[in-house]
Amino acid sequence: MQSTRLDTARILAARQVIDPVFLDTPLYRCESLESLLGCAVSIKLETANPVRSFKGRGTELAASLLVEDGSRAVVCASAGNLGQALAWSGRRRGLDVTVVASRFATAAKLDRIRALGAGLELVDGDHELARERAAEVARYEGIRLIEDSLDIETCEGAATIGLELVDVAPSFDTVLIALGGGALATGVGHVLKARAPEVEIVCVQPLGAPAMTLSWRQRRVVTTESTDTIADGVAGRLPIGAVLEDLLLVADDAVLVQEASIIAGMRMLLDHAGLVVEPSAALGIAAVLENRDRFAGRHVVTILCGSNVDANAYRRWVGADPAQGP
Amino acid sequence: MQSTRLDTARILAARQVIDPVFLDTPLYRCESLESLLGCAVSIKLETANPVRSFKGRGTELAASLLVEDGSRAVVCASAGNLGQALAWSGRRRGLDVTVVASRFATAAKLDRIRALGAGLELVDGDHELARERAAEVARYEGIRLIEDSLDIETCEGAATIGLELVDVAPSFDTVLIALGGGALATGVGHVLKARAPEVEIVCVQPLGAPAMTLSWRQRRVVTTESTDTIADGVAGRLPIGAVLEDLLLVADDAVLVQEASIIAGMRMLLDHAGLVVEPSAALGIAAVLENRDRFAGRHVVTILCGSNVDANAYRRWVGADPAQGP
Repeated sequence: MQSTRLDTARILAARQVIDPVFLDTPLYRCESLESLLGCAVSIKLETANPVRSFKGRGTELAASLLVEDGSRAVVCASAGNLGQALAWSGRRRGLDVTVVASRFATAAKLDRIRALGAGLELVDGDHELARERAAEVARYEGIRLIEDSLDIETCEGAATIGLELVDVAPSFDTVLIALGGGALATGVGHVLKARAPEVEIVCVQPLGAPAMTLSWRQRRVVTTESTDTIADGVAGRLPIGAVLEDLLLVADDAVLVQEASIIAGMRMLLDHAGLVVEPSAALGIAAVLENRDRFAGRHVVTILCGSNVDANAYRRWVGADPAQGP
Repeated sequence: MQSTRLDTARILAARQVIDPVFLDTPLYRCESLESLLGCAVSIKLETANPVRSFKGRGTELAASLLVEDGSRAVVCASAGNLGQALAWSGRRRGLDVTVVASRFATAAKLDRIRALGAGLELVDGDHELARERAAEVARYEGIRLIEDSLDIETCEGAATIGLELVDVAPSFDTVLIALGGGALATGVGHVLKARAPEVEIVCVQPLGAPAMTLSWRQRRVVTTESTDTIADGVAGRLPIGAVLEDLLLVADDAVLVQEASIIAGMRMLLDHAGLVVEPSAALGIAAVLENRDRFAGRHVVTILCGSNVDANAYRRWVGADPAQGP
């Protein structure tokens, strides 16, 4: 196949610089979900670490390279998870971290970014405005901008999840991957296509934030005017061309799911797997719920990519009354 | 020090026969709990595996030895977690597993035991009656009885958690351990006392089920007439003498906590760590909540030993309104 921007040797080497607290995360069959979903389900759990998402894999790699290069400061735009992870990775290496985020971002994520000692600048607009502003800050301050999904460290860090999936001699048919900017999908997809090409890579995005999925389907960058989804971690409007090119090489499909299915997925993971996830991490379960025939009898892995939720919103989503499930 | 019944070489060897899905579980600092609790807090997470508790470590060891000895069947009494784990370990080895439980046990646990293919016998009484009945079944059927905390495999399996704690060059001062029959406390305690004797071992039990704590304090077996706690996993009345003797050698303290603190701990873990736990797994946080001065500024590890809850009861405990926290 054509080559992505990613490099398997670099991904293997990345394991050496990523703090072990982010590596070798739980991967296990969750039978109590299987009878409900009609297929075998394995969980890859990326929430049991100090920043409650997979993003630490990428920021550990990025921050260690920055320090090697003598950098003292770094800036990123973030919906909240990258910012937390970069703040964590930067703090332990003495890097001055600035995070630019939408003032509408999940409050718990913003609180954690501040608590981790990063400078937080809020913009009065959505994530795409935060991206613009972060680029300005980088130019003005003369410091490195980490661009999620564009910067190869964010993809190759995420790709270490792929190594952990293929390490266990995959008996699974499909990996379900939350699709936002594309770092997770291109990272995991790159490794799977290289090491276990028989495994199907299915990206999942909310109907309310479909830009990258539409781009993948039309094989060209498609932007949207707005987003409307609770899955804040994947709510982009302006896909990056270079990331799309990689995604076209590694994704077998990209599906869109409804908000109600995302909520049903979060509720199902709470009630039947004892797992708290943020909406983006429920996309895989949502995809199975909407495509039962397609996945019937197959073995899917779903990567639970984050669990940073506002307690109030989470309680509202999962509801007080379990009988009210969609 | 005097010797417990446990053997560190056997515990090291146990790692080779325990399915890796139960080993090397997440261990990480949870800073969002720290500001609330006034001390450094590390989480050892034993819930992200196919049976959602640490018990698989012991049943893997026990089941593999049974198969080596040519056994075909095994019985245990269980409040629900040991039974699930034995059912899981037995199923993959072709063992015929019978679990005896109280009919008042957590329904989700009983459902999972059945779903895993074990025979389930319910008794019309508490866990101690289930223990009696399991012993009868073993005698009548001529099959092996696995007695939680008495049988050394259950302790040495749990003890592999201790190896994982000391492997990371412990910077922590205290390990908080849920105390029920004593397998977890004597297992982890044995390894810590052997490898990191400076670390304090604090057992935590509900005020409503204090038999082992009272026994530890009085250095003799003390039984109670009844139990009254939501922490079903640790609700025993009749401590085992041999286990108490080990506990006397490895525990530095045993504290009792109120039900309200257990619920507050569950709620705090949900809202601030994104973790679902069963009541027994919230005992450590409950102990810190009730003893803030004692733990102030220290670094505690709390072992989150299980997450098997009934969805309805869990929602009732953690409440729909996060403002109502105790």
